[in-house]
Amino acid sequence: MIVKTIEGIEALPVQMEGAKDVTVRVVFGPGDGAPTFAMRVFELAPGGHTPFHVHPFEHEAVILSGRIGMVTPEGTRPLAVGDMLLVMGDEKHQFRNLSDTESASFMCLVPIAYQK
Amino acid sequence: MIVKTIEGIEALPVQMEGAKDVTVRVVFGPGDGAPTFAMRVFELAPGGHTPFHVHPFEHEAVILSGRIGMVTPEGTRPLAVGDMLLVMGDEKHQFRNLSDTESASFMCLVPIAYQK
Repeated sequence: MIVKTIEGIEALPVQMEGAKDVTVRVVFGPGDGAPTFAMRVFELAPGGHTPFHVHPFEHEAVILSGRIGMVTPEGTRPLAVGDMLLVMGDEKHQFRNLSDTESASFMCLVPIAYQK
Repeated sequence: MIVKTIEGIEALPVQMEGAKDVTVRVVFGPGDGAPTFAMRVFELAPGGHTPFHVHPFEHEAVILSGRIGMVTPEGTRPLAVGDMLLVMGDEKHQFRNLSDTESASFMCLVPIAYQK
């Protein structure tokens, strides 16, 4: 069994094209022997966002702090802390920090094959 | 895309042998079309606990509220809100509410094949 706290995990900048001012902490991934799915926590600086992109696998996510909007081709949906999301494969999406002054964070899980 | 809040999900009693005063909310499971893994939130009444059991699949869990102890054959490890756990398959374990007065809750994810 592995127990972690968020403070003990290094935050790495997300280098993907289209990402802005985002870091990721891999809570449980291949390096921990996680067999099926990976748990990650992302932090968005004020105005930061993930890429507006699409991929063949799903996300399950939980909004942890701040004012995050989910951007889709239909527009931007504001989310509340505690909201839980299932983004299916092939749904275009972006997590965007709607605040210009406060950071925001969310947990996001993916199938293990898609976690580097 | 599906967005849920915890308040909108029915809490069902956990009927497993060895469980005491536990409810489960299935946030994302087979009924939502979740492809790979299921997200659930468990609430333990004061003194409540999950079964002290073992199974072939892993848990990834987050402590959400209250004073939860993780019971293993080595003893009971108190956990803090925000702690994140990877319980590997075949590791005997139990989530136990250590408080006699306050409820406690945790999020627990499993491979989809093991979510009814």
